[in-house]
Amino acid sequence: MLDELKEECGVFGMSLVQPNEEIINNMYLGIFALQHRGQESCGIAYQNESIEVIKHSGLVAGKFFENLPRDVKASQAIGHVRYSTCGPSNLINAQPLVFSCNKGEIAVAHNGNIPNSEMLKSDLIQTGSIFQTSSDSEILVHLISRIPGKNFETSLVSALNQINGAYSMLLLHNNQLIALRDPYGFRPLCYGEIKGGIVFASETNALDIIGAKNIKEVEPGEIIFCHNGKIEKKHNMGSSKKAQCIFELIYFSRPDSKVFGETVHDFRLKIGACLAKKCQLKPDIVIPVPDSGNSAAMGFAREAAIPFDFGLIRNHYTGRTFIKPGQQKRVEGVRLKLNPVKTVINGKSIAVIDDSLVRGTTSSKIVEILKDAGAKEVHLFLSSPEIKYSCFFGIDTPTRKELISSKLKPEEIAAQIGADSVTFLTIEDLKISVENPGDYCYACFNCDYPFAINED
Amino acid sequence: MLDELKEECGVFGMSLVQPNEEIINNMYLGIFALQHRGQESCGIAYQNESIEVIKHSGLVAGKFFENLPRDVKASQAIGHVRYSTCGPSNLINAQPLVFSCNKGEIAVAHNGNIPNSEMLKSDLIQTGSIFQTSSDSEILVHLISRIPGKNFETSLVSALNQINGAYSMLLLHNNQLIALRDPYGFRPLCYGEIKGGIVFASETNALDIIGAKNIKEVEPGEIIFCHNGKIEKKHNMGSSKKAQCIFELIYFSRPDSKVFGETVHDFRLKIGACLAKKCQLKPDIVIPVPDSGNSAAMGFAREAAIPFDFGLIRNHYTGRTFIKPGQQKRVEGVRLKLNPVKTVINGKSIAVIDDSLVRGTTSSKIVEILKDAGAKEVHLFLSSPEIKYSCFFGIDTPTRKELISSKLKPEEIAAQIGADSVTFLTIEDLKISVENPGDYCYACFNCDYPFAINED
Amino acid sequence: MLDELKEECGVFGMSLVQPNEEIINNMYLGIFALQHRGQESCGIAYQNESIEVIKHSGLVAGKFFENLPRDVKASQAIGHVRYSTCGPSNLINAQPLVFSCNKGEIAVAHNGNIPNSEMLKSDLIQTGSIFQTSSDSEILVHLISRIPGKNFETSLVSALNQINGAYSMLLLHNNQLIALRDPYGFRPLCYGEIKGGIVFASETNALDIIGAKNIKEVEPGEIIFCHNGKIEKKHNMGSSKKAQCIFELIYFSRPDSKVFGETVHDFRLKIGACLAKKCQLKPDIVIPVPDSGNSAAMGFAREAAIPFDFGLIRNHYTGRTFIKPGQQKRVEGVRLKLNPVKTVINGKSIAVIDDSLVRGTTSSKIVEILKDAGAKEVHLFLSSPEIKYSCFFGIDTPTRKELISSKLKPEEIAAQIGADSVTFLTIEDLKISVENPGDYCYACFNCDYPFAINED
Amino acid sequence: MLDELKEECGVFGMSLVQPNEEIINNMYLGIFALQHRGQESCGIAYQNESIEVIKHSGLVAGKFFENLPRDVKASQAIGHVRYSTCGPSNLINAQPLVFSCNKGEIAVAHNGNIPNSEMLKSDLIQTGSIFQTSSDSEILVHLISRIPGKNFETSLVSALNQINGAYSMLLLHNNQLIALRDPYGFRPLCYGEIKGGIVFASETNALDIIGAKNIKEVEPGEIIFCHNGKIEKKHNMGSSKKAQCIFELIYFSRPDSKVFGETVHDFRLKIGACLAKKCQLKPDIVIPVPDSGNSAAMGFAREAAIPFDFGLIRNHYTGRTFIKPGQQKRVEGVRLKLNPVKTVINGKSIAVIDDSLVRGTTSSKIVEILKDAGAKEVHLFLSSPEIKYSCFFGIDTPTRKELISSKLKPEEIAAQIGADSVTFLTIEDLKISVENPGDYCYACFNCDYPFAINED
Repeated sequence: MLDELKEECGVFGMSLVQPNEEIINNMYLGIFALQHRGQESCGIAYQNESIEVIKHSGLVAGKFFENLPRDVKASQAIGHVRYSTCGPSNLINAQPLVFSCNKGEIAVAHNGNIPNSEMLKSDLIQTGSIFQTSSDSEILVHLISRIPGKNFETSLVSALNQINGAYSMLLLHNNQLIALRDPYGFRPLCYGEIKGGIVFASETNALDIIGAKNIKEVEPGEIIFCHNGKIEKKHNMGSSKKAQCIFELIYFSRPDSKVFGETVHDFRLKIGACLAKKCQLKPDIVIPVPDSGNSAAMGFAREAAIPFDFGLIRNHYTGRTFIKPGQQKRVEGVRLKLNPVKTVINGKSIAVIDDSLVRGTTSSKIVEILKDAGAKEVHLFLSSPEIKYSCFFGIDTPTRKELISSKLKPEEIAAQIGADSVTFLTIEDLKISVENPGDYCYACFNCDYPFAINED
Repeated sequence: MLDELKEECGVFGMSLVQPNEEIINNMYLGIFALQHRGQESCGIAYQNESIEVIKHSGLVAGKFFENLPRDVKASQAIGHVRYSTCGPSNLINAQPLVFSCNKGEIAVAHNGNIPNSEMLKSDLIQTGSIFQTSSDSEILVHLISRIPGKNFETSLVSALNQINGAYSMLLLHNNQLIALRDPYGFRPLCYGEIKGGIVFASETNALDIIGAKNIKEVEPGEIIFCHNGKIEKKHNMGSSKKAQCIFELIYFSRPDSKVFGETVHDFRLKIGACLAKKCQLKPDIVIPVPDSGNSAAMGFAREAAIPFDFGLIRNHYTGRTFIKPGQQKRVEGVRLKLNPVKTVINGKSIAVIDDSLVRGTTSSKIVEILKDAGAKEVHLFLSSPEIKYSCFFGIDTPTRKELISSKLKPEEIAAQIGADSVTFLTIEDLKISVENPGDYCYACFNCDYPFAINED
Repeated sequence: MLDELKEECGVFGMSLVQPNEEIINNMYLGIFALQHRGQESCGIAYQNESIEVIKHSGLVAGKFFENLPRDVKASQAIGHVRYSTCGPSNLINAQPLVFSCNKGEIAVAHNGNIPNSEMLKSDLIQTGSIFQTSSDSEILVHLISRIPGKNFETSLVSALNQINGAYSMLLLHNNQLIALRDPYGFRPLCYGEIKGGIVFASETNALDIIGAKNIKEVEPGEIIFCHNGKIEKKHNMGSSKKAQCIFELIYFSRPDSKVFGETVHDFRLKIGACLAKKCQLKPDIVIPVPDSGNSAAMGFAREAAIPFDFGLIRNHYTGRTFIKPGQQKRVEGVRLKLNPVKTVINGKSIAVIDDSLVRGTTSSKIVEILKDAGAKEVHLFLSSPEIKYSCFFGIDTPTRKELISSKLKPEEIAAQIGADSVTFLTIEDLKISVENPGDYCYACFNCDYPFAINED
Repeated sequence: MLDELKEECGVFGMSLVQPNEEIINNMYLGIFALQHRGQESCGIAYQNESIEVIKHSGLVAGKFFENLPRDVKASQAIGHVRYSTCGPSNLINAQPLVFSCNKGEIAVAHNGNIPNSEMLKSDLIQTGSIFQTSSDSEILVHLISRIPGKNFETSLVSALNQINGAYSMLLLHNNQLIALRDPYGFRPLCYGEIKGGIVFASETNALDIIGAKNIKEVEPGEIIFCHNGKIEKKHNMGSSKKAQCIFELIYFSRPDSKVFGETVHDFRLKIGACLAKKCQLKPDIVIPVPDSGNSAAMGFAREAAIPFDFGLIRNHYTGRTFIKPGQQKRVEGVRLKLNPVKTVINGKSIAVIDDSLVRGTTSSKIVEILKDAGAKEVHLFLSSPEIKYSCFFGIDTPTRKELISSKLKPEEIAAQIGADSVTFLTIEDLKISVENPGDYCYACFNCDYPFAINED
């Protein structure tokens, strides 16, 4: 409903020393903790004699929760939450997907996107493969299946070598749980130990919820094979220049997660401070667009020594709007979500901190809300640089034409959305805010894709 | 809940001269009319620019009906009802299935079963194919995709030549509707004309509901290609000895349908008369196990000149039973479904006509109900021969061990279920009741499968 | 969807020697067996320390079944199925209704209608009572509550004396189950013994399903008080001339039920025979409009010595139709429900037996279906006299203006619906078909209401 | 799931100059904005010829939203959200309730509680009234109905004079919308102007969402009669000492609302500052228990000049836990909701600000979470005084025995929950933080109920 970037997935998996009847409950807790990474559908696959899968369109804690089998015991399981387009038939693309092939049964849950997938798919189709989903996982399993011989591990590695793109993945095969991350490391994947096993998750907050310790990252290019709670083997696909998605830190991941070695909240404090340094006026207060702007706004306020305050209150209940033909739903939805605290806003010069500007529709409405509440001036600060290019690695960006920053300069944007000023972070700011600035992808800001992309 | 044989599917399709906004409504009416052939899931696929599909677990007139898109226009569509095992994940196998391959997009709805499918599947898997469903349709599309070249028609024919089994199928491809039936013609498929197009269905009752005229059978081995309401081409795969499923006439099809050229109701009158000729005693009345026994019981009564009556009344609302561990659900369910009219039964010698004896559990309960209602004698007549062998062509039979007639003789069955006698129809009776007795499969009675089956 | 008369309710109740955990399951079976008397909502109330109630909009075996508490133990319970107008808010009127008053907690499930209820309600409102439902039960409880003193039994009797109308009722009060029937006995109510208790039901088929024996009628004017499986007291409100609803026998009750001392199926055989005597031509066959016309058609065929056959097949799955403004839904629905067996119909002169003619819309469509199927002549026989007047005692009749027989003579009706002839049963026929013809209400045919009705 | 106090309701109403088809949409927006005041059920009543009502168990934006009638036009409507005990039958108590009585049809939506309602109810029952719900609204309507004569206004006033308790109410009667607040003014109720009408709501944030202006409070004891968008009359029931619920400011109302003339957020800043003055140590950081502790924590941090930070992140998706017998659900739920930011917590002395301590179970878990995250010291500050007494005016408090502060002193609580210290606000702090300290009820802290309560 809001004009936000959308993450495309979260994954969670467990490998336990012995079949455990708590596994379904813990899988549920894990994917529930990752719900912010995808609200469209969810699923859990676990391996007994064969691989069983339960999937649902909708939130983790709804019908899916109600229908979970309570008495399943298993040692290995993987789960998934997905953001996607609507409709009941989207269950066809819901993950984990389960395949039978000459390497046996394989379940796949993945986060990421393969930009050259259409080419791969086209080649596969030319040479006789058939497809039922639009998931990149299906491509991978076709590639695995094309490798001669029975060896799953070498086939997996060989198949991955044919894929160039973003994938953090969990697989089930022959009672093994396999976790892997592409050589660029676009999407996060971490793991930790629990009593009686190993747990993998897109973000550490999902490891926290079940009490995992000794948390590490799956390294870019690393493939980890687990069986019954133990890591049996690690394989390294070889390294590329890392290209971790900086937007995981800016916006997608939860502030309580540690991602790519950075605590998300701390990173946002730093970029908030960077924004403050660009602020040449002295606003009366700093407010976040909650909740994603909270940490950056705090960092801004500390650096600028301006009071931080809660000037906009978010309604966290899921809201919906009556659909009428021609109605601008995206704009109207903002009112359902955000309401101003008038005494905080009235008569003040406001620095409002939001994470990003996509089409500009939400920001335009936020400025209006603040001005209606009596703001003397509204200065919008974005804790990301100008998004001018599409992402091909797992984020749902609108087409370049729709990206407001690909068309307008900040001062033009300010004029269009009614703000007194609009200030963006720079790529340099991002770079000084992480430990290893060379390990990130900034392509949506600077078009510097880690490898050539054929756009169409 | 009852101890019945289960049909595995019904198909329905339309090809219209021009895109019509009534098509979804008519598709709904068509598969609703076939609901008796499968209650587990249902689906409709239609072709616009690409093929869209809507599927649901459950009955046609429930959530599926509510969620149907009202304003779709299309010229070609196919639909399906399915009987299958339970659970939400069965949606993976719900039809129509839609595939992308080197011949383009293909949607498939089929009724039947390929006995050698595991071998075909195994071969395909060995040579690199991957599978996501347990549907034979997926095998077919793999085979199509393996054929070199772009020509869909020749590929389809070539793929079908590799398949030996039962299939009545509707496909969508490139705005064509293709209807076909295996060379044995195991499962029915017919078609008719409506204003503005052609309609295909498993049974004629689904053609009746939308007013189709000039109804014909798709011939065994025939492939019919339609586009925008016209038959463009017919292909004949060559003929085998026909092996039409006699159980379609005995039990599965609706009495108001014409199947394999026979009106189902009339056929059942004839086999009822055959049963009467075997009756050496003079029961006071003849009653059917409703509704499937109605026609045969009527035929029996006429031949024997014994009064027909309604001695058992069926509750047509879907009933369910509390599930308790160890409880014999199958038996208890009979009470939910059938209740005696005591004045009809009390003090009488009863000939009760049922369609078939599978495990014997339902019959045992029916005899008990009739005796409790005061029946002096209960003579059970089955309007099918003894089922001693499994079906591999689209009917869900229990394993041979569970089939009561594979273990016990009629008099032993009578003793076990508490009946005063049990009389079966003979294969000869069936043969004299159809026009072309050589065109049917009687394998579940006599093990004379149309071709060799590898059981496992 | 069809043009039928609608029953307004069914009731079921149990009183057990001791709290039994099977009670909810048995209550479910009982109201499931009465589902034909009301499909709109259902409910069960049981007494523990206080009275608990579970209600639902929809069929007994749907969500209601799923949400039933499995582990409740109770000795007394009552249940209800209801036919009514649509919408979720109808739950307000769903029964059993539970009230707190000066006589304690009272739960009520009733079948029937009080024609002077508006007057009673108006009086009660004038003198300070408030109403939340449109149920007659609420009126009764107000009257009970107005009686001074604490004695529930005398208050109940006194309250009932103020009510003139149709009511067969089950109540829970202070761990008693009370069953009663109005002095006219409009609606049926019977009871029987099971191991460990007593069971009450609108029809005997619901007693059969749980194996009740020694089945008797609650007499008109009788009030039976039960506690823990025993009848503690019977009270007689005094007798009126009985006015049992003859339509229970003609149409509403199931053929396997015994109602008012008559086996429904047998009664229908008799009235079918009466119709046959009126038949001056010699039709080729007799067919019922299934299932309600089955028994009468059989009786007709026997008397006329004309073959009975199944010429129309009913689809028992619940169907629904797309709603479009201005569309004649009622007519179109017939096609979803009934399909002809053409070989039975074609070229024949048909006597088709239906139970009643209300508006005539369904019959008109049936005649069309038969003629389309090739019927040479269609002679419609109705196993009820002409319905010319509204019912005020528990049946949902359309207004008199809508009743086709209040406007047209049989030959005019035949012309309008396209039949070759239309023949009605006479009241005399009904009278000779029951044991005690003076004990029935025929008011919808002859306007001879048992007492004066103020129509508005 | 958490150990929180629960509000019992929110109300919203509109009176429009002319029937408007946007009214249902606006009513939906209004009660959606009040969702935090009750998540159990919701409803909307509107007046056309008669009063129609739509109700649902569950959240406003779920099935209720889907089933709202889109094309209703009305001038007057009232809505309600309710917190209550579970189960489908709670729909019986869902509001608005609609009654028919001698003053006509009345719909009622109320927020509050009548402590002497059992006595009133008992009197009414003694003298013949019957009850179907446990709602105080039903008592009110009985009282209105008992007043002789037809005049609704005088009857309403007279009935309210018999009631001593907390009620902020909206009623529909004869196309009037009536808004009223008890003379103590326990619960909030405000109103504002929109184009074409007047809008009433429990909190101003619901007025904001539809753009209302000129917002005022309904005064304690005030009754406002509106018709078609205009205030027709105001009545004053006479004044008591005001006893506004201070917990509305501390916890229940949204920070963006203005309640009792106070902006909630500003009030919380002040009490946070008061807490800071009690803090004799120098914690390293101040963190809130989000979101209810946010404003107070900010106030604390500013006063103490200690950094504010986000040390706990809340998962705003509705979570659920597997229910196992004997499991301590309440405690486990905290983990689903709150996760620490370890880098913020680790090695620090933490002042954590929560709104209140009820049973202490949630706080105990929060302390554990913080210590597990490496907190050196955890000092818990509560932005309310010790809750030692039950509320009888609309808040769902546990029994006095369960209230931890009724049994333990702060230092004992600290020991029990594992905190290094526990500090409560004082009543004096509250008094200096509002403009009119004499206008509030502090009874849950000091037992000084505005009038005598008969506890049982």
